Amino acid sequence: MSDQQGITVPKGKDFSEWYNEVTLKAGLADFSSVKGFMFIKPYGYGIWELIQAALDSLLKAQGHQNAYSPALIPERFLQREQEHVEGFSPELFVVTQAGTQPLEERLILRPTSETVVYDAYAKWIRSWRDLPLLYNYWNSVFRAEIKMTKLFLRTCEFLWQEGHTVHATEGEADREVRSILESYRTLMEDYLAIPVLTGRKSDKEKFAGAVYTTTLEALMPDGKALQMGTSHQLGQNFAKAFGITFLDQAQKRQHAWQTSWGVSTRTIGAVIMVHGDDRGLVLPPRIAPIQVVVVPIFQDASKDSVLKEAKHLQGKLEKLGIRVQLDDREGYSPGWKFNEWELKGVPVRLEIGPKDLEQQQAILVRRDSMQKQPVKWDALGTVVPALLEDIQAALFRKATSFLEANTRPAATLKELGRLAEKEKGFILAGWCGNKACEEQVKDQTGTDIRVIPFQPPAGACVVCGNSGQQACFARAY
Amino acid sequence: MSDQQGITVPKGKDFSEWYNEVTLKAGLADFSSVKGFMFIKPYGYGIWELIQAALDSLLKAQGHQNAYSPALIPERFLQREQEHVEGFSPELFVVTQAGTQPLEERLILRPTSETVVYDAYAKWIRSWRDLPLLYNYWNSVFRAEIKMTKLFLRTCEFLWQEGHTVHATEGEADREVRSILESYRTLMEDYLAIPVLTGRKSDKEKFAGAVYTTTLEALMPDGKALQMGTSHQLGQNFAKAFGITFLDQAQKRQHAWQTSWGVSTRTIGAVIMVHGDDRGLVLPPRIAPIQVVVVPIFQDASKDSVLKEAKHLQGKLEKLGIRVQLDDREGYSPGWKFNEWELKGVPVRLEIGPKDLEQQQAILVRRDSMQKQPVKWDALGTVVPALLEDIQAALFRKATSFLEANTRPAATLKELGRLAEKEKGFILAGWCGNKACEEQVKDQTGTDIRVIPFQPPAGACVVCGNSGQQACFARAY
Repeated sequence: MSDQQGITVPKGKDFSEWYNEVTLKAGLADFSSVKGFMFIKPYGYGIWELIQAALDSLLKAQGHQNAYSPALIPERFLQREQEHVEGFSPELFVVTQAGTQPLEERLILRPTSETVVYDAYAKWIRSWRDLPLLYNYWNSVFRAEIKMTKLFLRTCEFLWQEGHTVHATEGEADREVRSILESYRTLMEDYLAIPVLTGRKSDKEKFAGAVYTTTLEALMPDGKALQMGTSHQLGQNFAKAFGITFLDQAQKRQHAWQTSWGVSTRTIGAVIMVHGDDRGLVLPPRIAPIQVVVVPIFQDASKDSVLKEAKHLQGKLEKLGIRVQLDDREGYSPGWKFNEWELKGVPVRLEIGPKDLEQQQAILVRRDSMQKQPVKWDALGTVVPALLEDIQAALFRKATSFLEANTRPAATLKELGRLAEKEKGFILAGWCGNKACEEQVKDQTGTDIRVIPFQPPAGACVVCGNSGQQACFARAY
Repeated sequence: MSDQQGITVPKGKDFSEWYNEVTLKAGLADFSSVKGFMFIKPYGYGIWELIQAALDSLLKAQGHQNAYSPALIPERFLQREQEHVEGFSPELFVVTQAGTQPLEERLILRPTSETVVYDAYAKWIRSWRDLPLLYNYWNSVFRAEIKMTKLFLRTCEFLWQEGHTVHATEGEADREVRSILESYRTLMEDYLAIPVLTGRKSDKEKFAGAVYTTTLEALMPDGKALQMGTSHQLGQNFAKAFGITFLDQAQKRQHAWQTSWGVSTRTIGAVIMVHGDDRGLVLPPRIAPIQVVVVPIFQDASKDSVLKEAKHLQGKLEKLGIRVQLDDREGYSPGWKFNEWELKGVPVRLEIGPKDLEQQQAILVRRDSMQKQPVKWDALGTVVPALLEDIQAALFRKATSFLEANTRPAATLKELGRLAEKEKGFILAGWCGNKACEEQVKDQTGTDIRVIPFQPPAGACVVCGNSGQQACFARAY
């Protein structure tokens, strides 16, 4: 860390290069020598642990339980659901050998676990008493990406959770899909401070094997959309392919209804992009591994007394449940430390020096606005928690303003094209529901349908003019 | 669960079949259709989550941080450390294809991550200021086992943590190895309630690539040893193979010193074996996903009042931080429920029926001894936590007595052979330190050196008669 420089590329100048610099220099992740794969470093993994804790507790509060399913899947399992195998085949890693022996049957590294999990569910589920079955799996999945690697956003392996639930009725599965989507929204908005649009995917964009897919879409500062999570109604598609049946209360055998849903480490990429600035990362306090960094400032004469008080204040804040780090390293100037912790996006810096001792105060600096304020020691216990909440709220407000300012209507295909080219952002435009029109928009403007609102206003299709509904188009990651 | 039977094979009659029954019927895990792989069900995964939480907090308290490293490793990385690749080659899963293309370079599914992690460390570590580097990785690893699958004990994929630390001096790495071993001991003894012997492995049994390996060995009820965890001093072996160097404070470039260490889901297998009985699983309270199950007993007339009080008591115990489940399912008799929760090893059952309402009491039944006691509602808040502590301690005491009763000295190879055949358990015998003698013991008695105490008493070698030190031999999983 000692020879680390600050960010050299402004966010507004070269967004992609800025993203790489922040991700690498803040110590979040690194490229592995294994082509296409990512190393998540402790600071990035610390953010993931906080995201996991938040989501895990939201899921458990709704009765979900965690489990673990094998990482390797026999190729024949994937072939049982036609749409599913077609969707995933181009990007599968295949194991063909174990030890010195060729395998009798080729094994696939899970790109997602529907098939291997549902093979097991078919064995476990017998009666309505076994339903609903609400299991969630924290693991990593593998997709042989041929495009260029981008840390957190496009790698051959990423961490996520995948939920796989089984229900007795279609309505119950529908409600699960929506309830998960709302939990995901809570995670994105209340923890990551990133506003999202929710709704359905078009049939073209839905999950391979699903009846329908719901999604959360966020807007990045370069005007491109990022899918933050999806929740799928699988209907009875997989239940029929894998023979998942149950005896209902009337002793009649029925195929079950299923859902699957996932959120990945890609969300960390969104946090970097949405909140970061030219100094580096800016972390929302709720997912910041370090919420407050205490930087003591002293000369030889004042060292002992300043350090003593710095430790005291650290302990005081930790007792309130705040994640605090004391940076008492020797051989680094306070200015150097300020730069480093700004680069790492720590929400609040607490400075304390000899003059502050006299005043019984500390200087608080908030990372988002860089505003400074002196605060008396006695007041820190109330001011710091309030400041963290305020930063959390301010980041969400700012991101929401950006989303709103960059969501625009288009009445014609030409206007849609112009907006996609010049303004970027989300574009609301009418669509008749036909795939041909959707593909024509993609060809002519480079935008996909990111999301169709759950209650879309009516709107004439910008391609064919037939009556339809409003959909949200954008270029996307 | 509705058609579940109890355990049909006594533990003392067919230990292996008893183990399978308990593991499957308690809902801990299941065989996957993917040959050699295991599905960890929520109840088993819940135990793992508690083990993870306990160990994670022990590790973090010592300054370790979590990170994530890729699951796939280029074959050439493994070949850099000679002993390491020889140790692991026979059991590697090899990925040879991505999408429809053959890979340019074969990728190995990590059997352990030394090589891929140290490749990254070589890039990150430059100066003494970067040391010590104390990273830990929670993941799963893959070993193509040709022997028969045994849930939690022998599967082609298992969950674990692997720590990989880097230090400036040999002494510091030595201290890390021992400090981790002590954290592992705390986990095994204070949480899993399983006593362990600690010490070094012989060179023959050490980790492939290590200078020396330390280990924790537990004794299973069938008299076989189970390795519960290991902590390795890697010396500079991997640092030299991967070029991990740092500038010391005198600006001199040096190779770093490294350690690695791991504990896996195999420990859950030990918990099943050590504490279980003919009714099923017996869980130590500290790692029990459900510590107290409340079973209300009622007729139609008393249903409302009994259920109301059952819920009230549940809430009261939950407020104390106890993990409580209320079993208010309809259509199951109390006796059926008792059997099921005994099978699942819940430490304490709290029964409450109409007569108990009159007495303002509940009946507590402890799973380990099946002792019953009536307790007044007012006293539950003190009695239940104390009871849980008492069960935890009693399980450890019982296992310790078994370990002590089954650790025997042998003065001759013949006696060692007789003990290994008749008595099983740990056998303390003199060993000169030569591999030839170690192998002869193995050939003639089926026992390995499980562990050499850190301060071994002197003892003449049971094979060659030369002077040596006491080692602990046993047959093993």
